[in-house]
Amino acid sequence: VTTRAVDGVRQTTDARGFARWLSESRDPGLSGALEEGAPPPGTADIISMAAGLPAPELFPLEALSAAFARAFRDDGPSCLQYGSPRGLPALRVLVCQQLAARGVVATPDEVMITTGSSQALDLLGRVLLDAGDTVAVEAPTFPGALDAWRSRSPRFLTVPLDDDGLVVEALEEALRTAPEPPQFLYTLPTFQNPAGVCLSAHRRVDLLELSAKHNLLIVEDDPYFDLWYDQPSPPPIRALMDARKHVIYVGSFSKILAPGLRLGYVVADRAVMKHLLRAKAAADLHSVGIVQSALLALYTSGDFDALAHRALVRDLYRARRDAVCAALEVHVQGGATWRRPRGGFFVWLELAGGVRADSLMPRAKTAGMSFLSGRAFYPYAGGEHALRLSFSPSSPPRLISGVQRLAQAIAA
Amino acid sequence: VTTRAVDGVRQTTDARGFARWLSESRDPGLSGALEEGAPPPGTADIISMAAGLPAPELFPLEALSAAFARAFRDDGPSCLQYGSPRGLPALRVLVCQQLAARGVVATPDEVMITTGSSQALDLLGRVLLDAGDTVAVEAPTFPGALDAWRSRSPRFLTVPLDDDGLVVEALEEALRTAPEPPQFLYTLPTFQNPAGVCLSAHRRVDLLELSAKHNLLIVEDDPYFDLWYDQPSPPPIRALMDARKHVIYVGSFSKILAPGLRLGYVVADRAVMKHLLRAKAAADLHSVGIVQSALLALYTSGDFDALAHRALVRDLYRARRDAVCAALEVHVQGGATWRRPRGGFFVWLELAGGVRADSLMPRAKTAGMSFLSGRAFYPYAGGEHALRLSFSPSSPPRLISGVQRLAQAIAA
Repeated sequence: VTTRAVDGVRQTTDARGFARWLSESRDPGLSGALEEGAPPPGTADIISMAAGLPAPELFPLEALSAAFARAFRDDGPSCLQYGSPRGLPALRVLVCQQLAARGVVATPDEVMITTGSSQALDLLGRVLLDAGDTVAVEAPTFPGALDAWRSRSPRFLTVPLDDDGLVVEALEEALRTAPEPPQFLYTLPTFQNPAGVCLSAHRRVDLLELSAKHNLLIVEDDPYFDLWYDQPSPPPIRALMDARKHVIYVGSFSKILAPGLRLGYVVADRAVMKHLLRAKAAADLHSVGIVQSALLALYTSGDFDALAHRALVRDLYRARRDAVCAALEVHVQGGATWRRPRGGFFVWLELAGGVRADSLMPRAKTAGMSFLSGRAFYPYAGGEHALRLSFSPSSPPRLISGVQRLAQAIAA
Repeated sequence: VTTRAVDGVRQTTDARGFARWLSESRDPGLSGALEEGAPPPGTADIISMAAGLPAPELFPLEALSAAFARAFRDDGPSCLQYGSPRGLPALRVLVCQQLAARGVVATPDEVMITTGSSQALDLLGRVLLDAGDTVAVEAPTFPGALDAWRSRSPRFLTVPLDDDGLVVEALEEALRTAPEPPQFLYTLPTFQNPAGVCLSAHRRVDLLELSAKHNLLIVEDDPYFDLWYDQPSPPPIRALMDARKHVIYVGSFSKILAPGLRLGYVVADRAVMKHLLRAKAAADLHSVGIVQSALLALYTSGDFDALAHRALVRDLYRARRDAVCAALEVHVQGGATWRRPRGGFFVWLELAGGVRADSLMPRAKTAGMSFLSGRAFYPYAGGEHALRLSFSPSSPPRLISGVQRLAQAIAA
């Protein structure tokens, strides 16, 4: 009743009145790509290959539930109180231990816990970017990063990718010809979103040398590090000798545990960390205490076998990667080109014959599947003839059907 | 061992090297007031009256723990997955029901769940403020709000308070003489932080009329609504007729449940909400799903008596308010003036005889208590001879000792 009455009131008020108060530089926000990729209401059997959702059957539900119970029991009042913007000290120690296993050496005071790695990107924008600054990004790149920084109205300098990841020579050329040097390079070196490529070990060294030579700060976003399916990921750029001078590292528990926990972290030199902490305090004071405590309990209780869980995660996604790639070979040959990803969640398709992904989308939906159009992954033009398939959330049979439907749409 | 080795490395690197990458407009962040108010390490028996921490003995630990268990059981996989920036639909319905009890009529699509009400303030800054815009604030006001908006480099227009809250005539005068009209007025009408005053019902009407006349947007921050000790709080400004056209309302579960959950909300017209949702998606995608689900479970399970809990909360803080005010009467007469707050967490003291709060602070610490210096609550100069006492986190005997120690410091 209340709702109805309110709706009545609402329609009599001037909805556009509020628009006059909006900031001119208000966040332009998400490109709408995710909503476009979502199935239209009423279409039950759309196979979504649009959003990069982790597989919910992998969420360690019982272990997490037990970890929350333990966090309440052992740490209740203190983690329900206001806390530090840095995050729980013991959780930052745990992050350092997990990083050490990746070859990344960091001290707990170089780590800040964030509300998902999205927030780390947002806070880095606040701390590193002035209006109109330049940011170098891979093309294609993660739209969430572009969105996080757009409120600073940056100029994006795009650097192409090939089979071995970011083309370091192209970056060098871009640095030479750019009207002003970028404030930083944003890179997803390992199983890149959306391209699926992995920066080769050799190029990692080249990139770091280039960074030293040009005094270029690197923001390394590494959510897919643990999700390798053929051979272990190469060490992060931040793990290389002297990288701590030039690399800020962003990590996440979203892909390996559960994204709804909104737990990520950023590793930065103390000089940057000081400002990140202030930005974090101004943004949301700190991330949820009980969630931090539960994560710590999960990894330290002995009930949860983190190694076995990672293996399980890899096995499930590997089977999905294999299914989608096999189906592409069978059904989409000639209609598109792609690279077989060695990790991560995504296959990037370049459509053949000048087919535009936006034109393909309604046909794909009619056929019963969805994808993300490539243009969402470019700050300006680009990606019109490309699309991203996410294989993470669906079973192999559904992935195979999804690819068959895509092939139908391409053929139509 | 790792930590030590790393520290060795760190000292050989150029810590200041990173400074060259920092944004010029990086968030200047917290004034440092909270850290100043914290007891120095090694002083065990400092009675802290600095931070406005809720009393941890009021956290409904068992009920919350059960609510999390229930959330995992009933809603596990879905609330561990990525979610909507709006927040859980059922939680937004619950917020609307709680708001209805305050006289505030809102629909679920006018509500967004935020990572604490701090984040609501931050997102409002992103959506409403361009660099250099003016914001009208009460003087004194909540430093967290100033910090949230400082990255936009706003000009602050200050409006004085008296026993009945914000002086509406002074605001009108300020609007008339300001070089440019403020983008919005930020007000904490009910048991204001730090002044403790409550905007009278009469002035609420006057303020809303002024807002309509001057086309002034009001951001009403209302974390202390339920914390009245003498008589129920007057309805929020947002509850007044036609207020929905001019008022954005911010609420929080931090004071009534637990701040570490980081759950707040913002109520705004759909035209503003559209932009708030984009800003939220760019900031942290969404607030933690399992925490939202647990909050919902807490209020809907039947195991938690929300009314009885509110009464318990009021009784405990009322006793503390009474203790601190009685002690001030006995020990600080002549040394300062103050108003007896009728709700909230704070007593605001104006020191007599030109005593500066900053000079008093070291003496207070030596005597064994701490407070926040008044200047933290003003955007520019102001508050030098004032201080804020928080009575929320300490028992009556400790509050009495705290005030005795303060009196000692004033006398010294």
